[in-house]
Amino acid sequence: MERPLILVSNDDSYRAPGVHHLIDRLVKLGDVVCVCPEHPQSGQSMAITVNSPLRITELESYNGTRMYHVNGTPVDCVKLAMHHILTRRPALVATGINHGSNAAINVLYSGTMGAAMEGAAFGIPSIGFSLTDHSWDADFSPCLRAIDVLAAAALEHGMPIDTALNVNAPAIHTEPTGMKLCVPCRGLWNDEYKEYEDPNGHKFYWLTGTFENLEPDNTQTDQWALDHGYVSVVPVGIERSASPAPAVDWLPAAVEAYNTRH
Amino acid sequence: MERPLILVSNDDSYRAPGVHHLIDRLVKLGDVVCVCPEHPQSGQSMAITVNSPLRITELESYNGTRMYHVNGTPVDCVKLAMHHILTRRPALVATGINHGSNAAINVLYSGTMGAAMEGAAFGIPSIGFSLTDHSWDADFSPCLRAIDVLAAAALEHGMPIDTALNVNAPAIHTEPTGMKLCVPCRGLWNDEYKEYEDPNGHKFYWLTGTFENLEPDNTQTDQWALDHGYVSVVPVGIERSASPAPAVDWLPAAVEAYNTRH
Repeated sequence: MERPLILVSNDDSYRAPGVHHLIDRLVKLGDVVCVCPEHPQSGQSMAITVNSPLRITELESYNGTRMYHVNGTPVDCVKLAMHHILTRRPALVATGINHGSNAAINVLYSGTMGAAMEGAAFGIPSIGFSLTDHSWDADFSPCLRAIDVLAAAALEHGMPIDTALNVNAPAIHTEPTGMKLCVPCRGLWNDEYKEYEDPNGHKFYWLTGTFENLEPDNTQTDQWALDHGYVSVVPVGIERSASPAPAVDWLPAAVEAYNTRH
Repeated sequence: MERPLILVSNDDSYRAPGVHHLIDRLVKLGDVVCVCPEHPQSGQSMAITVNSPLRITELESYNGTRMYHVNGTPVDCVKLAMHHILTRRPALVATGINHGSNAAINVLYSGTMGAAMEGAAFGIPSIGFSLTDHSWDADFSPCLRAIDVLAAAALEHGMPIDTALNVNAPAIHTEPTGMKLCVPCRGLWNDEYKEYEDPNGHKFYWLTGTFENLEPDNTQTDQWALDHGYVSVVPVGIERSASPAPAVDWLPAAVEAYNTRH
C-alpha cells in the first residue's frame, strides 16, 4: 500500500530548525515533501503574492524528504506545492514547528497557521504546530509527541470540512502536563510600537508589544492551557463566517490517547 | 454633541478611487480620518510588518478628511492609526471600497477585510465594503446606499464582539436588487498560476485563476446574491475558532430598511 503523502511548510523559512523537527516526526508516518518560504515570513497571515512572479527552487533533500523554497509567503508555498510540485494529493498538510506562540489572537497574523488554513481550503486535513519560544535553538521536545498523535489521527480519520487545527506547545523542559482541547483566548497586544527618530528628525515605528490576556481565569482557553504546561489544540474554521463550524469528532479521543500514554 | 470618529482604510492604497467614494459617504455620518497603505496591498490578508520600520506620512486632506499613508499592510495602517494617529477612539472602522470582490473564499486573502478584522480585534464595529469590479475607474454607485445604511446602523447599535461585516456589491449599472444576509460561498480557485520561462530557461509563476462556485444552487451564499444583483452581507468572526460567533442582532432590520427604501 502506498504511504500517505504529507506536505510540510512553515513561515520561518526552510532554514528554521523547527521545520526539521517536524519532518523528523512525520517521516515515520508517510512520504514527506517540504515547501517553505525562502525568507522568514512571520506575521504574513494568509497573504498571497499577486503582483510579482514566484520561483520554486529545489534544495538538497533532508532526512529522505524533498525540500523546496519559494520566494513568497507561506500560502504561496502551499498553492505552488499543490499546483506545480506535488504529483499526488497530500493526505495531510502539517506546518511549523513555529518558533513562537500562535495561540490566542496570534492565529490571525500567523503565517504558519495561514499555510495550514490554505491546506484546509484545499480540503486537506491540516495542522499547524507551534512552540511558545521564539529562539532559533529552542527545545522542540514538548511538541514532538503531539505531532505523532495528531498527525496519525488526522491521517486516519480526516478532518471536517474547512477546519484546521492550531496546536501550541509550552516552552518547558519537561513533558507537557497533557493536551487540552481549547477555545482561543481573548486578548490583545499593548504598546504595539516602539517609536524612533531617524537622523533627519522623522519618526518611524517598529512592531513590538506585550500580550494581555483578557480572560486569565478561563480554564478553557489555549493561553491558560499553555500557562499551565499543556499542549493546546484549537479547531480553527477557515470560512471566517460567524456561523458554527463542525466539531472535530475524533479529537477528544486523540487528546485522550495523548493524555493516557504518559 | 461630538460627531463620531470614523477610521477609513483599504488595501488598494490612498490613491484608489474606491476609498474616496467611501469617504464621501461617511463624512455625512461623522469625522473621518483615512489611513491607507502607501502602495497597493491586495492579497495581504491580516499580514503585519514585523521585521522592518514603518513610517506615517500625512497627505493633503480630502473632502474635510485627514489623509495619511503608511509604508506597510492594511493591518499596519489600522494598528498605527489606533496607536499613533487618532486622538480618540473611533466608533467605526470602514474599509474599502475595494476594487474587486471579497466574497466567498476571497475574504481569507483580502487586505481590505484584513483591516476590517483588525478593527474588530480592537473591539470597534468594523465593516469592509467591496465592489465586484477590479477596474480603477469602476462605477461604485451600487455600493453607496449600502454604506449609508450599514455604517449608520453600526454607529447606532454597535456590533457583537469579534465580528466584522463583509459587504460586497455587484458590478451593475442599476440599483442593486436588494441587500441579502448571506453565508460565505464555498468555492475554490482553479488554474491558479500562469507558468512562464525566463530568458535563462528557468520557470516562474504568476498568480491568476478562475473562481469555481461549489454550491451554485445555494441561494444563501454571498456569491449567489451577487450573481443575482444583490448586495451581500456576511458577518465574519475574527476569532477563527470553530465555535459559533454571536449573530448581529440589528442586521436583519438594517437589511430590511435598505430593501424597503427602494
